[in-house]
Order: sequence, then structure tokens, then C-alpha cells
Amino acid sequence: MRPIWLEKSSGNVKIIDQRKLPHVFEIVDLLDADDIVRAIREMYVRGAPLIGATGAFGVYLAVREAMKTSCFDEVFQRACENIRAARPTAVNLAWAVDRMTAAISSATDPSEKLALAREEAGRITEEEADNCRRIGEHGVSLIEEAARGKNGRTVNILTHCNAGWLACIEYGTATAPMYIAAEKGIDIHIWIDETRPLNQGARLTAWELGKAGIRHTLIPDNAGGHLMQHGMVDMVIVGTDRTTHTGDVANKIGTYLKALAARDNGIPFYVALPGSTFDWRAADGLKQIPIEQRDPDEVRYVQGLEGGKTKSVLLCPEDTPAANYAFDVTPARLVTGFITERGMCEATKEAIAGLFPEMAGDK
Amino acid sequence: MRPIWLEKSSGNVKIIDQRKLPHVFEIVDLLDADDIVRAIREMYVRGAPLIGATGAFGVYLAVREAMKTSCFDEVFQRACENIRAARPTAVNLAWAVDRMTAAISSATDPSEKLALAREEAGRITEEEADNCRRIGEHGVSLIEEAARGKNGRTVNILTHCNAGWLACIEYGTATAPMYIAAEKGIDIHIWIDETRPLNQGARLTAWELGKAGIRHTLIPDNAGGHLMQHGMVDMVIVGTDRTTHTGDVANKIGTYLKALAARDNGIPFYVALPGSTFDWRAADGLKQIPIEQRDPDEVRYVQGLEGGKTKSVLLCPEDTPAANYAFDVTPARLVTGFITERGMCEATKEAIAGLFPEMAGDK
Repeated sequence: MRPIWLEKSSGNVKIIDQRKLPHVFEIVDLLDADDIVRAIREMYVRGAPLIGATGAFGVYLAVREAMKTSCFDEVFQRACENIRAARPTAVNLAWAVDRMTAAISSATDPSEKLALAREEAGRITEEEADNCRRIGEHGVSLIEEAARGKNGRTVNILTHCNAGWLACIEYGTATAPMYIAAEKGIDIHIWIDETRPLNQGARLTAWELGKAGIRHTLIPDNAGGHLMQHGMVDMVIVGTDRTTHTGDVANKIGTYLKALAARDNGIPFYVALPGSTFDWRAADGLKQIPIEQRDPDEVRYVQGLEGGKTKSVLLCPEDTPAANYAFDVTPARLVTGFITERGMCEATKEAIAGLFPEMAGDK
Repeated sequence: MRPIWLEKSSGNVKIIDQRKLPHVFEIVDLLDADDIVRAIREMYVRGAPLIGATGAFGVYLAVREAMKTSCFDEVFQRACENIRAARPTAVNLAWAVDRMTAAISSATDPSEKLALAREEAGRITEEEADNCRRIGEHGVSLIEEAARGKNGRTVNILTHCNAGWLACIEYGTATAPMYIAAEKGIDIHIWIDETRPLNQGARLTAWELGKAGIRHTLIPDNAGGHLMQHGMVDMVIVGTDRTTHTGDVANKIGTYLKALAARDNGIPFYVALPGSTFDWRAADGLKQIPIEQRDPDEVRYVQGLEGGKTKSVLLCPEDTPAANYAFDVTPARLVTGFITERGMCEATKEAIAGLFPEMAGDK
């Protein structure tokens, strides 16, 4: 199962509506660029690689839409701009839109553009799936090493948010080393941060790992520091929405707090990401990565299951104002290393450029 | 309004059922020691000073109960043991039970014991209320100083959990400087951590500050680090459930993460507490303060308002296991200072003993 795919017969894009998981499993059809923008903005789909893939399929749908009008260029360009602006933090979105428009630019005939767009969106998706598997293969060595250090006792890994297959096509990024460790029979246990306010950990990571039979425990976001102080965490692995080429990591709000706790307790803090999530222009994550502010009601209300139905309950007094910053930036100095499809590296400009020389030279 | 009081006519103890706030305001009668234990354990009442006061009234009810039996000592002692064991982390509970039993030990006649117990429980409550006011008067100088440093621009204070009047009789501990700053017309704004899993920030602190007309914004527990990185927090003030005489601070789970973020961003981190919250025996908070583990369903389910009714919704898949550590310990090295009823001091054994010499010598 993948979180996005093209239905061959209709040429429509299909996704899992992740807002409704784990209580309802619903597949939604996306028919045009507006559908794509809504799916990204309202978080039917989320996670940097999946946002990228969805954006790529959005460009394909934008071509299909523009073909039906008498002003292809105008309609197509406006659609691409809307897709690119759907969410600000994940760099994969702009990356995917740029790659798609470049891929179809050589064609002049709209139907030729459509065929190229379909191919390229498929290629991006396959590449991201392949990247995830490679990330897992590289990252599992860290878990194997930790298992050796513990003489085979359970390796406890803490993760924040969902950087699983739901976010990243297949295997996920942060979860890929976990899936491969489980395949290899290594004894692992995952601490899952619930990840307020939208509970991607409680809803999505818990669901994924449960389905995969990987042992896990849900914890409030507040608990990680205590667990680390008491030797109950061997490593942290998270994903990222955008990482500067200097190593600053934007990820789901709260990641920075876990990185601080890991550092304070001498626990390695790894970030798993495909090359497409590096920002080759931004050098200062705190100053240059735009942090999305979302609807305060996502903080004030929580969604869950009651009496067989999904309900949204108000947590605070009716008139309490709330703020909802979706991401934070973990400075490179707190990152032990990156796990990429090309191997691992330290969180320095030089080490990152060493793995991706063609991109680093491309600024 | 206070969170606990004695009804003169019946001699019963009355409390606000804080589990139901902010959506339902309900007053509950406590008739005997079992009621007291349930109210503390199930968190009808919470917060170290209020747990202490409730325990004190519990000893009074235990005397009243034991008087009705033919074996006073046995019934009374068992009741006191149950009260003392109701929750493990807040040191005020054992402190209050000890002080109550000492206060009535001189009397031999049960009805004399009852009168003494009633008096002493009232005295403890009044003293804690008075302590809170003094904590506020000492602590407000920090806010005044910050306001001067900002040329009158808003002073932003972050707090975690609820250490307000609901937790601490009157004024609260962490909130006391805020209430007094507001009385003095200083421009303040409070960032309220929602405080998962039981949302004391979203439910109680937001309700309290809203009633008091103090400007505030609710945030997920994950957000504080980001706010601090971007200059949006001038100081952190929290309460504590138990602080070692060496300065290690047990407080609601997640406090340690905020202390780390404050340190990383050069922001002062203050802990407000009455003398009754110091543990004069424990010297190593991480090793010696017992951390309560509560029902995992408090993590898996969240309570809120839907359609005019309070409902409990499941956040995660039905079979997801969860862990629920209620407190963590912030090492003294991360604490800028303590705000007590006797003034402020640094988080060192010597400075604490300087303020409370009679207690420090009492080990």
C-alpha cells in the first residue's frame, strides 16, 4: 500500500485521507489542482516526501486541466503557483513543482506535456520510495551497532511525528531503519511522541507500527526528557520537512526540545531524509526557513473516537486564544548525523556537500 | 473563592472537582478519609500545596471517623497511611499529614483531637494562602525588572501545567507574580502550555487567567522551544511538586524540556514554591524523587466538550499501548532561581538553607 497513486483507468490521483486515520480508512480522488492544493493545505496528505509527490501529481493534473481551456499557459502557471504555495515549510513541494515544470518544458504539444508529466510524477514517486528503502538500509547499521552495545537487549528508539510510509511513499524516512531492523529480527521498541496538536504520532505512527507488528508505546510529547534521563532511550530518529545545506533541521514543532534532551543526556539524535529535502539555498535555518502558522482551532480542539464516531472536542474555555506554529528548527549543532539514501553524514555543510556534490554546486 | 474549604454547619470538606473544569463547575463534599484519598488520587484536586491542604483536612476527617469506632488509634492510623500514600510525588502530602498528627498528639480526648485537627488544617490552609501572596510579592520584582528592560513593552511569561489558585489556595505559586503584576498594571502576556496528558494548562490555567482578565495564549507543549528561539519568551515561571534541598525540581512531566530550552536561549527559568514543597532529606532529585506512573488511558483518551457535553475521545488505535509518567525532574543546574514566601534564592543547597535555616538543620 502507498499513500498516493494514479488510477490508470481514470487518470485521477488517489490518496488516503490521513486526517481520519486511525479510526476511519478512506480513499479520496483528486481530480484537479484545486483538489491537490486542498489535500496538501488541509493535511489529507502530509510529510515532506509525500507533499512533494502530491505536488508532482498536482502538476500533472494541472496540465490535464489546462488542456481543456483555450489559455493553457495561464491556467497551468496559476495552478502551479497555487500548488507551490499550498504549504510553506516542506521544501520538497517547490522542488517537485520545479522538477515537473522542467521535465515538460521541452514539449510544445499539451498532450505530449501530459504524457511527460505523468511519467515524471511517477518517476519522482518511485525515486522517493527507493530513497526510503536506501535510508533504511543505511540507518539500520546504527540500530545494529546499538544492539551489539546492549548485548542484544532491546534497542529503544524515540520518534516524533510521523515520518513513516504514510508520509514518505514506502518504508518512510525515520521509520525505514526501524522497519528494516524488524525485518532483520533485531529487538527494537519505539517510543512514539503523540505529536500535538494534530497527533500524527498517536494517530499515524502508532497505526503504522501496529500494523507492522513493531513493538511501541505511545507517550505524551512531554515525556521524552524523563525517559532519556533514565536510560530508556538509546537513540532518537526523526524526519524533516526542510534541512538547510548547513544542517539546520526544520521538523514538526517540538523536535527541537527532543534534540536538546538528547544532547543533555548524551543520546544520539539522527535525522533521516532524502536528498530532495535539503534546501541548497538557505544557510541559516532559524532565520530563513518559513514556519507555517496554522488555525488555532487545531490546538483548541482534539479529534478522536467516541461511541463509534469521530468527534472533535473542545479542550479549553470557549474564548481561550491559541497559537499554532507547525514546525521548529533544530540547529545543526544538536544533530548527531543525517541518514540519507546515499549514506550517513555529519550535520555540516562540508559533509552534506560530500554526499550530494552535484546539488551543493548547484546553488 | 478557594479550591478547598470546611463547611461550618456540617463539618464536611468541600472542593471544586477540577477534573471537570473548565466545562463544568462542580463542588463536591468529602465526608471521610476514603473520599479524601479518592479526591487526591483521581485528581479532583491537584497541585502540591492543595494536595497538602487536602491531606490536612483528610487527617481531620480521619479523627472524626475514628471517633465513631471503638478502636480510635487503629482506624486513625490506617486512614493517615492511606492519605499519605494517595499520590507519591508531592512532598506536601506527607508534610501535611506529619504536621497534623504532631499537632493533635498532645490531646488524649478524641473530641479535643478533633478540635485541634480542625484548627491545624485551617492554619495550614491559611499559611499556604499567605505564602502564595508573599511569593507573588517577591516574584513580581522579576517581572518589573523585565518590563524596565523592555521599556514597557509586553513581558511574555511561559508557564507549564497549573500552579494557580486552583492548585495552591490563593494567588497560586507560579501565577502569584503574574496576578500581582496585573494588579500593578504591568503589561504581561502568558504563554500557557496545554500540559498533556491531563491538559491542566488548557483546562485550568486558561480558565483562571481568563477569569482574571490576564492576557494569555494557549500553546501545545511542543511550541515553547520555538517561541524561545524567536525572542517571544522573557521568562519561564513554573511550580513544583517536590524540590530537593539541593535544588532539583520535580514538576509536571515536560518541565525539564522547557528548562533545557530556556537555558539554550539564555532565558531565565524560575520555580515558585512555598517552603512546604522542599524535601529536606532527598539530595538527588533524579534518583530519590518517586515519579508516579498513572493510567495509560489518561494518554490514550482526551476529554473535552462536544455538543454541550463533556466527552472522552480515543486518540490512537484501540490496541495502542501507552505510558504515563506524571512528573519529571529538572536538575538544579538549569534553574535560575526559586521564588519563595521568604524571598528569592539560587538553586543551591547553601542558598536554600539560607532562606530556611530551621528546616535545613532539621534533617
